[in-house]
Amino acid sequence: MVKPNIAFYEQYGFDGLKALKSIIPKYQEAGIPVLMDAKRGDIGKTSAAYAKALFEFWGVDAVTVAPYMGSDSVGPFIEWCEKGKGVYILTRTSNVGAVDMQNLAVTKGSSVNGAAITTPIYMKTAEKLIEWHKPGVGSVIGATFPRELEEISGFFVSSGKEVPMLIPGVGAQGGTAQDVVAALRKTNNPLELHRINSSSGINYAYLEEKTDDYAGAAVRAIRKLNGEIGLHRLPGIA
Amino acid sequence: MVKPNIAFYEQYGFDGLKALKSIIPKYQEAGIPVLMDAKRGDIGKTSAAYAKALFEFWGVDAVTVAPYMGSDSVGPFIEWCEKGKGVYILTRTSNVGAVDMQNLAVTKGSSVNGAAITTPIYMKTAEKLIEWHKPGVGSVIGATFPRELEEISGFFVSSGKEVPMLIPGVGAQGGTAQDVVAALRKTNNPLELHRINSSSGINYAYLEEKTDDYAGAAVRAIRKLNGEIGLHRLPGIA
Repeated sequence: MVKPNIAFYEQYGFDGLKALKSIIPKYQEAGIPVLMDAKRGDIGKTSAAYAKALFEFWGVDAVTVAPYMGSDSVGPFIEWCEKGKGVYILTRTSNVGAVDMQNLAVTKGSSVNGAAITTPIYMKTAEKLIEWHKPGVGSVIGATFPRELEEISGFFVSSGKEVPMLIPGVGAQGGTAQDVVAALRKTNNPLELHRINSSSGINYAYLEEKTDDYAGAAVRAIRKLNGEIGLHRLPGIA
Repeated sequence: MVKPNIAFYEQYGFDGLKALKSIIPKYQEAGIPVLMDAKRGDIGKTSAAYAKALFEFWGVDAVTVAPYMGSDSVGPFIEWCEKGKGVYILTRTSNVGAVDMQNLAVTKGSSVNGAAITTPIYMKTAEKLIEWHKPGVGSVIGATFPRELEEISGFFVSSGKEVPMLIPGVGAQGGTAQDVVAALRKTNNPLELHRINSSSGINYAYLEEKTDDYAGAAVRAIRKLNGEIGLHRLPGIA
């Protein structure tokens, strides 16, 4: 039997949502786009309702969506790209268990000797993403798997479409800015198109620093990460 | 440029959530379990927070989760099965676009003549589900694809694990109770273990009936569906 702390939730239940609602426009007024890592994906009309809630009620600039349910599931989000919104489709996620599904080998056909030619599911997702592509459609690829990042980055560049990548997993999850920049550089993918993301590394920087100065520690962690990204840039690569 | 109706949202923004919060215990007090079709799935610690929110704050009895991110993504939900909660993993969804990802052929090995032996992704998801299984773990399979339903149902029965199936897509989406019952019967899967679900067919029954009697129309639609399910039962199959 689960015993929720009813009194706590009654008092604070929707306060977090209200705080979020008030913070989002503050960032946007300061010129900072807000991406909601919602990972939504449902049947078409439910996805359409989620998209409306995220882009209109919450008013965010971009969201992440899950690809498992296919074209009519991600489609209602992608339609919002025509209104200037961004949609990042989960492709190769940063977590350890990502291999369970995303690295399964899918058949692409047979070679001359009859052996199967295969490609991992994350590459099929990348192919679908290009098939569904409109300007504003991007891809989520973890910084924790630089080999896969390089493979997918190279594929997007060769497709001729501009696919912004959201690259989480730097910091707390173990990815490094150096590996990410190297993968982008090797595939001639312009750095300024992409978002290298650290969440816990910035959010919990005050714990790392053992300080009460939450905002100061977060700003220092952001500066440090930006420094690391800059450090590994090469001349000619933005 | 998206122009949200700010005044509308300011006034009613969280009222839907508050209504939902107050309705859930009403159903449970009447002995009706509440399943939230949340389709969540994130990195481990975020999934853990989603699970806590759904099972503790919202207090629902079961949720749906997405499998794309793998074991450490669905794991934090499955842990709640030990506290009597239910977790239905998306396996073969009811929407048209489901084929885009879920029907891709994954290699299982080679036959004696070297040709690849393959299985669809939805069957790999079903295999993973059995690997991750605890009592309370179930599977979402659309009523709109009775052939796949039969295939997955047969696999679950042969696994020896009890896997409750949530079977949406009856009614508005085009699935029929007759096809669902036939698939369960052919695979000796006991009918009472599963949930055959109609959402829009019940929710919008008042539109179908062209009446203002929302509740009455919903009740009549439920009775009709239950009648159809009952009609196709055979003696000896619950």
